[in-house]
Amino acid sequence: MGDRYWQQYAHQSQIDKQKSKMAKITPRSKDFSEWYLDVIREADMADYAPVRGCIVVKPYGWSLYENMRDFLDRRFKETGHSNAAFPLFIPMSFLQKEAQHVKGFSPELAVVTIGGGETLEEPLAVRPTSETIIGSMYAQWVKSYRDLPVLINTWNSVVRWEKRTKPFLRTMEFYWQEGHTAHATHDEAMEEVLRMLGVYADHASEECAIPVIQGRKSISERFAGADNTFSIEAMMGDKKALQAGTSHDLGQNFARAFEIKYLDRDNTEKLCWTTSWGMSWRMLGAVIMTHGDDQGLRLPPKIAPVQVVIVPIYKNDTEKSSVFETAERIYKEIKAAGLRVKLDDREETPGFKFNDWEMRGVPVRVEIGPKDVANRAAALARRDIPGKAGKSFVPQDGLVQRVQVLLVEVHNSLLQQATAFRDANIHEVNTYEELKEVVEDGFALAPVADDPEVDAKIKEETRATNRNFPTQQAAGEWKCIITGKPVRERALFGKAY
Amino acid sequence: MGDRYWQQYAHQSQIDKQKSKMAKITPRSKDFSEWYLDVIREADMADYAPVRGCIVVKPYGWSLYENMRDFLDRRFKETGHSNAAFPLFIPMSFLQKEAQHVKGFSPELAVVTIGGGETLEEPLAVRPTSETIIGSMYAQWVKSYRDLPVLINTWNSVVRWEKRTKPFLRTMEFYWQEGHTAHATHDEAMEEVLRMLGVYADHASEECAIPVIQGRKSISERFAGADNTFSIEAMMGDKKALQAGTSHDLGQNFARAFEIKYLDRDNTEKLCWTTSWGMSWRMLGAVIMTHGDDQGLRLPPKIAPVQVVIVPIYKNDTEKSSVFETAERIYKEIKAAGLRVKLDDREETPGFKFNDWEMRGVPVRVEIGPKDVANRAAALARRDIPGKAGKSFVPQDGLVQRVQVLLVEVHNSLLQQATAFRDANIHEVNTYEELKEVVEDGFALAPVADDPEVDAKIKEETRATNRNFPTQQAAGEWKCIITGKPVRERALFGKAY
Repeated sequence: MGDRYWQQYAHQSQIDKQKSKMAKITPRSKDFSEWYLDVIREADMADYAPVRGCIVVKPYGWSLYENMRDFLDRRFKETGHSNAAFPLFIPMSFLQKEAQHVKGFSPELAVVTIGGGETLEEPLAVRPTSETIIGSMYAQWVKSYRDLPVLINTWNSVVRWEKRTKPFLRTMEFYWQEGHTAHATHDEAMEEVLRMLGVYADHASEECAIPVIQGRKSISERFAGADNTFSIEAMMGDKKALQAGTSHDLGQNFARAFEIKYLDRDNTEKLCWTTSWGMSWRMLGAVIMTHGDDQGLRLPPKIAPVQVVIVPIYKNDTEKSSVFETAERIYKEIKAAGLRVKLDDREETPGFKFNDWEMRGVPVRVEIGPKDVANRAAALARRDIPGKAGKSFVPQDGLVQRVQVLLVEVHNSLLQQATAFRDANIHEVNTYEELKEVVEDGFALAPVADDPEVDAKIKEETRATNRNFPTQQAAGEWKCIITGKPVRERALFGKAY
Repeated sequence: MGDRYWQQYAHQSQIDKQKSKMAKITPRSKDFSEWYLDVIREADMADYAPVRGCIVVKPYGWSLYENMRDFLDRRFKETGHSNAAFPLFIPMSFLQKEAQHVKGFSPELAVVTIGGGETLEEPLAVRPTSETIIGSMYAQWVKSYRDLPVLINTWNSVVRWEKRTKPFLRTMEFYWQEGHTAHATHDEAMEEVLRMLGVYADHASEECAIPVIQGRKSISERFAGADNTFSIEAMMGDKKALQAGTSHDLGQNFARAFEIKYLDRDNTEKLCWTTSWGMSWRMLGAVIMTHGDDQGLRLPPKIAPVQVVIVPIYKNDTEKSSVFETAERIYKEIKAAGLRVKLDDREETPGFKFNDWEMRGVPVRVEIGPKDVANRAAALARRDIPGKAGKSFVPQDGLVQRVQVLLVEVHNSLLQQATAFRDANIHEVNTYEELKEVVEDGFALAPVADDPEVDAKIKEETRATNRNFPTQQAAGEWKCIITGKPVRERALFGKAY
């Protein structure tokens, strides 16, 4: 974040202050949805764009997205993937080559029909996802078994026509990454599909402090054109589910449609097996909704735009001068350790600043007052534990190390809180009646057949959807709560974003 | 770059090898344009997309772009800017609010007329640039002088309908960054315009090893809607000019159109002054065309995807084993120093590998053979100096430091070569006849009036265009070579990309 941005932000906040002494947000318990929108506004993350369905992501929100992106990108590169760039536009005929794919996406397309002042002979879709255009390139690039696997990722934005708008969760244009790979065998493709699902799960827990459940999507919830879709599912603070990433086994569907073929060792021509996997800025919405509280955001330290804020406390100019001297020294020490730190030198009350940085979810706050200067001490406040319980008084010596340790603790604590909350709100059920009750206030783990009619009935009658059949689940034999047929796995149901 | 990509690339190259013993590219001197396309293909940088006017940037090309982007992004942040994200679509009515702007861009627009299966009431332009949509947001965000300056950058792709395609230089969709700032005074805005022009010039020379000439665009070459446009101009290997970045003083034109107003200290409402500035992946084209030679790319070390390649040389398995032992140790040492290094373990001849990495422009090559193992030595070859003159034999002790120093030298040498070449091909002229001759094979520095009719006449008759009025030029008084009127500055003319 540029320092000028903070200057500017500082000025803006003075004006906001004139409007209201303290930013007001709806309590989470009163209206979770209003709370979410209030936090996004008050933490200065995003704004509505003057284009239906679109948002503008402001510097504080975009900085958070960039941090998440950089972690994920590193994980992709560590697992052997390279980035590339593909066109924004897709000829309509490409989308039509895979029957299920076009069926799934055509109702959501934005279509360019005019270019350079002339009506186009073939209209161009703004990409809703890039399987088709990338498939057409892989068909050119792959000739032999030696060319496989192809392991490419691309960061971009895609467009799907949406009637409703909710920042980060449901927008017409959204930013994401899409990975696209081609393999010689189905086994290899499946390995890739599950590897990338694992990468998403690791990113969620290790960087975003969000525990997720990996699993297979039911038939009715598959990606359009996939043989199988896998997802990670998280529980938000209102006990609703959010699908935070998906990984698809595309079988040979796109390889067949685009003729992605290779000459195998045995000198015969074979179709490739392809995969795709994507995670979008919904994950940013998940970070807000998993960790946030009535004071605003609580950001996991690894991805927080500001990890540490220093708030000087003083009553007069004499105090100010000595407090700032210490504050600036500590600022430099923390910065030198490679942490993202701000020294809040605005002309505001400490209380205002505390509220303000709490709203923005900064994980650790360092407070320095005249007594701290005298005692070579400081107060540390952690955002994950409110009030006095989260505050400690420490010597300035070794402060940087303490802050570093505390950041790790805050991460662990957020993850632990989210995990405990989630686990307390997942219930095993054995009857449809039990499911109906449970999904009113949590997730139900229910034995069901993988049958679109079962999913549809439950969705229609309870508004809960089949999230996935968790990969890790106890073996057993049950009866489907709808059809009564014997089943060997259970699915997670919940109301979802 | 993921290692799997290189495995895959290794396999691909075996096949290519079957086709031709050595990649063949047109000599630069024979056909520069063919040479450029050949290099892009053989160095595996980009491919044509099956969408008219669009390209696909392959992993090697995209990695180069990412490196350039990261350097530029750091420079933006150091000068106080923050990144944000704005919508891909712009309502047509927004573009029409600034008269010159719409005049300039409407012939080039791609227009979405259908969304979600329905004809849109108001068609949406795919952004050709974002002044209008960002202007509309700034009008909401800026209320008081305390909110200024607003200093935001955004990385995205934009679309301008093009009849011809040339990778990185002329494509319908291109990737770039666009900075947009709002200020209280024209002086501040002008400071920003020139600061960012300087950032572009520094990036060009310090990271891309390309010397550029900063200057003011003539009236006829201004950005549509700007009061003044400034550019950096570089000379390519064929002595043609390439505009590598522009910075615009937008005056109050967009502030007026979108009502970006602030309440000043004196309690009166005033219009802001805005700027915008952009650099695109053309700069990547400039890197190719400035430094490349008949063997392929020559990449500046700071931005090269691979900075150092290690080529083991051996005749039999016994040699191979000891050579690899040393090569792997050296690989680890160089990697540990934070350099981007590859150990080429393909089953290919050393000659093939040399050619291959020369084509890809890798700045430094380390060769290790059996004698080197015995003597604890290695051969170093620098890509900027061909043949024996660029080769040295050094001890393995201190090799990493030597490589680091050599990388700096390669950068300096590429910059020096490009500067010498450019300076030798800029000629001062005092008559139109002289200009006509000079622009056939270089740049002319000519006294001209800043008059669209003068620019038009010269362009029509010579195909050379007014590149800019250089910021740094000798004071003097001349006569315009066309109108004969007295003028106080000279402009640079050349044929251009």
